[in-house]
Amino acid sequence: MDTGEFRRLWNEIEPIGRADSGGYLRFSWTEADLELRQWFHTQAKRRGLRYEEDRNGNLYAWWDAAKEQVIDPDAPHPHGAVLTGSHFDSVPHGGAYDGPLGIVSGFLAIDALRSAGAEPKRPIGIAAFTEEEGGRFGVPCLGSRLMTGAIDPERARALTDPDGTTLAEAMNAAGAEPDLIGPDPERLQRIAAFIELHIEQGRALDGGESPVAVASAIWPHGRWRVTFTGVADHAGTTRLPDRRDPMLTFAFAVLAARKEARLAGGVATVGRVEAEPNATNAIASTVTAWLDVRAPDEAVLSEILSGFESKVTERAGRDGTEVAMSAESESPIVEFDADLRERVAELLGGAPVVPTAAGHDAGVLSAHVPTAMLFVRNPTGVSHAPGEAASDEDCAAGAAALAAVLRDLAC
Amino acid sequence: MDTGEFRRLWNEIEPIGRADSGGYLRFSWTEADLELRQWFHTQAKRRGLRYEEDRNGNLYAWWDAAKEQVIDPDAPHPHGAVLTGSHFDSVPHGGAYDGPLGIVSGFLAIDALRSAGAEPKRPIGIAAFTEEEGGRFGVPCLGSRLMTGAIDPERARALTDPDGTTLAEAMNAAGAEPDLIGPDPERLQRIAAFIELHIEQGRALDGGESPVAVASAIWPHGRWRVTFTGVADHAGTTRLPDRRDPMLTFAFAVLAARKEARLAGGVATVGRVEAEPNATNAIASTVTAWLDVRAPDEAVLSEILSGFESKVTERAGRDGTEVAMSAESESPIVEFDADLRERVAELLGGAPVVPTAAGHDAGVLSAHVPTAMLFVRNPTGVSHAPGEAASDEDCAAGAAALAAVLRDLAC
Repeated sequence: MDTGEFRRLWNEIEPIGRADSGGYLRFSWTEADLELRQWFHTQAKRRGLRYEEDRNGNLYAWWDAAKEQVIDPDAPHPHGAVLTGSHFDSVPHGGAYDGPLGIVSGFLAIDALRSAGAEPKRPIGIAAFTEEEGGRFGVPCLGSRLMTGAIDPERARALTDPDGTTLAEAMNAAGAEPDLIGPDPERLQRIAAFIELHIEQGRALDGGESPVAVASAIWPHGRWRVTFTGVADHAGTTRLPDRRDPMLTFAFAVLAARKEARLAGGVATVGRVEAEPNATNAIASTVTAWLDVRAPDEAVLSEILSGFESKVTERAGRDGTEVAMSAESESPIVEFDADLRERVAELLGGAPVVPTAAGHDAGVLSAHVPTAMLFVRNPTGVSHAPGEAASDEDCAAGAAALAAVLRDLAC
Repeated sequence: MDTGEFRRLWNEIEPIGRADSGGYLRFSWTEADLELRQWFHTQAKRRGLRYEEDRNGNLYAWWDAAKEQVIDPDAPHPHGAVLTGSHFDSVPHGGAYDGPLGIVSGFLAIDALRSAGAEPKRPIGIAAFTEEEGGRFGVPCLGSRLMTGAIDPERARALTDPDGTTLAEAMNAAGAEPDLIGPDPERLQRIAAFIELHIEQGRALDGGESPVAVASAIWPHGRWRVTFTGVADHAGTTRLPDRRDPMLTFAFAVLAARKEARLAGGVATVGRVEAEPNATNAIASTVTAWLDVRAPDEAVLSEILSGFESKVTERAGRDGTEVAMSAESESPIVEFDADLRERVAELLGGAPVVPTAAGHDAGVLSAHVPTAMLFVRNPTGVSHAPGEAASDEDCAAGAAALAAVLRDLAC
């Protein structure tokens, strides 16, 4: 594949939602997102692909088989489609590649298959799932979770963004219909396999030969909202022993999370915090923090969480504060389909097989559909930040690898 | 003084800017503030007092002497005015009394003097200083600092609120003229004494006989903006040893501030924090915190600050982050004028004399003008929060005490 083809398509979306930081503000159902959705529609039309928006706001561009053929009558999805794709939305000031690379590569892969004269025996689709990052409404993989029934639509409609706008309101404002969101089993049944191409988010491929890897598993992970409640008072006149300052308990919790993760062999992060009333000269009444924890297996994840909870509860007792913890999302370990993974890795000439600590729509779909992931080399290892990077050559190699996989599975 | 008189006047301003929390959002130059300023104007007119707005947005209502008389030709301000008053603005969700009680008491004191047939031999004024809390633009006592030349007007104009609006923009939007702000020495020279009545902010009067106290001193204090800079990255895929997470350094700093203050015998508070990009699944790039430190004397204040700075710098080295600290305001110790303090305490029948750890416009003015403060009993001891309280009886007693002081000094 020509790197120029990649670059030309990439240039079309590169400016959309880019902030002065060099990072992206592409939150679901905002103007930038709607512009990207329109771009997706245009790409589908330009290629004569059948455009579709499902009841959950996920988009599809279909290259239908001229005549549906049964490839393997004993397979669970004899007529099923091979779906690729990823998501447009970003974390605040996230990188350019996380998500959009998988969608752009889908279009490039179809272009490559057509140039090579390939014909699909099953439908090949490109998907753009909504709110994968949870960057606006807090729950990651919201589009794929809704589709697979992994989240109650009632709860999803009521999720709020930092301004207090609900998902239902945001969808309404964008002309979508929030009343219709929810499980979509018929659609799911028509998918025989899902292949998500994604930027690599660490340095697993750094220094190696291969620009592309295949995913083995996604670490179990989750995010918890932790609310520390104390008593607001004057920052000058309140004696230290009389204080019930939730900022102290929060500070202890940040350090405890890191320590428990280090001891157990996982990772834990507090990247988001909000204090009330957030005044320089007043003790806070409430501090709300979001704790992100990931681990190689469920036992380690539980160990980190229980260690965190017991240490922080004990500290809150000493601070005279209260702590409440609620899960905003919990994702069990995902072991990708072993047969599909081996087939893909072999097809790509023995590409490295690596695990990831990042969640993906592929992880959600893998509970229902044989699923695989391709990772494209990231020389900085940075992700969810403007420093995320990939060379045009590696991106073109990724699209070529995706084309080979789609051809193998669908043509 | 009749508690009914206090209650009637108090009821007029009680609803203005009150939030659902029961606390107040009365930030300078916002709608609530403009409503309070209009109320001040109306009160002045209603009483035939001369209304004036100075170049820094501070308001005055003057009861001029019928014929100016020299009370003491050797005094530094033979014709000077006796000024009372306080401020309207609040911290976010602050209490009802902090500030407005001093202004309402000024009007009630003039009413009481007139009912008693007193005649001023010097002008008696009531002042409403702007932005005393720094709740919108970060620098406390901004109105009195500007007037006394304690802050550069250029710096003041450029101060921003949390939405990025500058003081200059906010003043313009409210119809004031930010180009004119700055030192006002002529006005300052016309003031012979300043008496600020204020809600007590601890429990200094709790359990005692007296509803009113006289201030001895204001603890030296200041606020510092502390910026922790690291590197944003993915919360899942970045190995712990590779992280440069400023949230960790910040958390350590919160605990270090408390510990240094406890050991040295002062108080230190972090009540305000902002993280960037503030995303659940990204390591923060920057955490900005505001540190408020107060101490009985300058040596203790320095001890807390230097201990904090060295411990946090050391920790930042271990975290791979950077820390920058800049003073947003620093207020040296204020010892109120001893003669005036003794005269007032004696006049009030031996009222208790207590120090305070809270800053006030009286502290700023005391560098230029003989200044005293009266405190009204606060049974909860809470301040800068909705729980701040005073009984109507104590408030009426405070206004009566203020009337006695004004009569003694000006009539």
